[in-house]
Amino acid sequence: MKHEHAPVPVISKSRLEFLFDGVFAIAMTILVLELKVPELVDQRSIIELARALVHEASTFVSYLISFVVLGVFWYRHNQQYHSYHAVSRGMLVLHFVQLAAAAFFPFCAAIFGRYPTNALSQVVYLGCILVYAWASFANWVVAKRSGSIAAELTEAAYRHSRTRLLRWCLLVSALFAVYLIRTLARLA
Amino acid sequence: MKHEHAPVPVISKSRLEFLFDGVFAIAMTILVLELKVPELVDQRSIIELARALVHEASTFVSYLISFVVLGVFWYRHNQQYHSYHAVSRGMLVLHFVQLAAAAFFPFCAAIFGRYPTNALSQVVYLGCILVYAWASFANWVVAKRSGSIAAELTEAAYRHSRTRLLRWCLLVSALFAVYLIRTLARLA
Amino acid sequence: MKHEHAPVPVISKSRLEFLFDGVFAIAMTILVLELKVPELVDQRSIIELARALVHEASTFVSYLISFVVLGVFWYRHNQQYHSYHAVSRGMLVLHFVQLAAAAFFPFCAAIFGRYPTNALSQVVYLGCILVYAWASFANWVVAKRSGSIAAELTEAAYRHSRTRLLRWCLLVSALFAVYLIRTLARLA
Amino acid sequence: MKHEHAPVPVISKSRLEFLFDGVFAIAMTILVLELKVPELVDQRSIIELARALVHEASTFVSYLISFVVLGVFWYRHNQQYHSYHAVSRGMLVLHFVQLAAAAFFPFCAAIFGRYPTNALSQVVYLGCILVYAWASFANWVVAKRSGSIAAELTEAAYRHSRTRLLRWCLLVSALFAVYLIRTLARLA
Repeated sequence: MKHEHAPVPVISKSRLEFLFDGVFAIAMTILVLELKVPELVDQRSIIELARALVHEASTFVSYLISFVVLGVFWYRHNQQYHSYHAVSRGMLVLHFVQLAAAAFFPFCAAIFGRYPTNALSQVVYLGCILVYAWASFANWVVAKRSGSIAAELTEAAYRHSRTRLLRWCLLVSALFAVYLIRTLARLA
Repeated sequence: MKHEHAPVPVISKSRLEFLFDGVFAIAMTILVLELKVPELVDQRSIIELARALVHEASTFVSYLISFVVLGVFWYRHNQQYHSYHAVSRGMLVLHFVQLAAAAFFPFCAAIFGRYPTNALSQVVYLGCILVYAWASFANWVVAKRSGSIAAELTEAAYRHSRTRLLRWCLLVSALFAVYLIRTLARLA
Repeated sequence: MKHEHAPVPVISKSRLEFLFDGVFAIAMTILVLELKVPELVDQRSIIELARALVHEASTFVSYLISFVVLGVFWYRHNQQYHSYHAVSRGMLVLHFVQLAAAAFFPFCAAIFGRYPTNALSQVVYLGCILVYAWASFANWVVAKRSGSIAAELTEAAYRHSRTRLLRWCLLVSALFAVYLIRTLARLA
Repeated sequence: MKHEHAPVPVISKSRLEFLFDGVFAIAMTILVLELKVPELVDQRSIIELARALVHEASTFVSYLISFVVLGVFWYRHNQQYHSYHAVSRGMLVLHFVQLAAAAFFPFCAAIFGRYPTNALSQVVYLGCILVYAWASFANWVVAKRSGSIAAELTEAAYRHSRTRLLRWCLLVSALFAVYLIRTLARLA
């Protein structure tokens, strides 16, 4: 498992970081665009506005959960990225998979917020997290194989992080499987 | 109150700054998405367009106020952030609370702009500012406790800023309380 | 006119630049959100789609003009900003005026694109440019007065730029005045 | 073909890079705004949600293709930009053409995703890519002529990249021509 050879940097580390942070900042901010200003009959009615906002409660909850999910993704990426001294072609492709999942996430959050009790919307939401999680894990492994991990990181530290990432992926996969099976069972 | 120990940096200061500035730039710019192009019957009618724009006047005012609020938030954060030499785990979490409030702010601005005379929309608007303000204050205190404040900043300067932040939080809390009570009183 | 004293930097030059570039990148990109995908009866009809796009022609033109306007604003800011060695409080406030105008610009572009022949939409569009232009000019003068202009810039170069900025402001003001008067005349 | 003279830098390389990355991050993220949350009669119905999502399938595919297209554009720009040691006036203008095309791309992706079988929507989509591709190529040639290419890049490497860019432009042009002719033929 230790084919370390000279890395093939294909992109400046800082520019990819830049694009990554930009996409996350935007995804986190446009989550809110799903929250719609309600139409009130009596503009001054507190009760009517309160009812309209309560009606959107699941979208608010989805907003909060999704913000936390994106925040955790971003934080984890930070820690991984810190250990790379270069970005190889495979890592770049996997970064784009992560970015596509992150940019797609506001749509999943919107569906989940609107139809929280719909089994399929839960599957879509978890599916997006699943793609992101496995791309993160693959990134870490590919980074090691292409020799892009900084020399300061010991083999033990690399393996420790890999185990943690894998555990996270398996957890999300198990959740996804449960929800997928439940959804299919309801259809049968 | 002076448990200074070695800070536990969990994230690069510049990347968090980056995400922060990104979220603020986007929040400030999408405020305008709430302003809708009116539908005119006579496309060339000056009177009709003027009436339609006047009809949206409160949304314009909310846009301006909200832009200033976000600008002041951003500026204050700048000054605080400058004094940190590291970001600890607690500070990171509090930063995410600040970011969630800032990203949520365009929705509050939209509700307030649409229903400026609705007591509840005022409470929502102030509530978002309240969350942001207290998270800022907590960030400052947590930074001190985790030893993340740069050595150049004297104890007196730290306390001075803390007092100023606290005064700001109390002012917003008082305003929020007044509006909340007024809203509840109207319901009773 | 030469009260140069020590500058009072209130903000890191790079962070303000960051926020500025972020707001411009977003404003330039959300201009396109005003272009709506038309609803077609026959999804495969070339003629129907062509007619729908031609119907939006003025919005396309407004998109292009507005993109160029924001590009020129951004470029000019770049050149000005390069000459500052610090940002004083007055300059910060004026930067926020510029940012508010830039963030507001997509709305003006949308109104202008939808009602290009409406005299008032032209006035609104030019009014936004007017605010930006004068804030740019004021920034330059305030920078000089607060001693924030880099020592490398000669007095002659400063005056040359000031004259150019003033000429630009006067041109925009004249255009704005003509359109405003024309609009008022039509009302009378 | 080798009029190398002193370059005329008109803008800081890093700020243009910044604006470029910002516009790309936003364009990539707002692609998703075209995906609409469907309206369901029965909120818990898996079948109904599945049908609604399948109905949007072409928009999902357009999202994925367009994300890849923007990713490839961004990556290619990265490689080109790395070879410049300055940005001349002509290059700045061409960069703005590239940015305008990239910012316009979400609209093309939305039309293409909605009407994938409409010959005109394909032409519009390819037309946007065409403008971007030729502006990239022109940028490379203009960079050489204005002496803005770093000395480290050999003449052979420059020519190699130029050939590759040209081949790409010709491929896109050929595709565009085929689709344009097909569209015109259907009209006749």
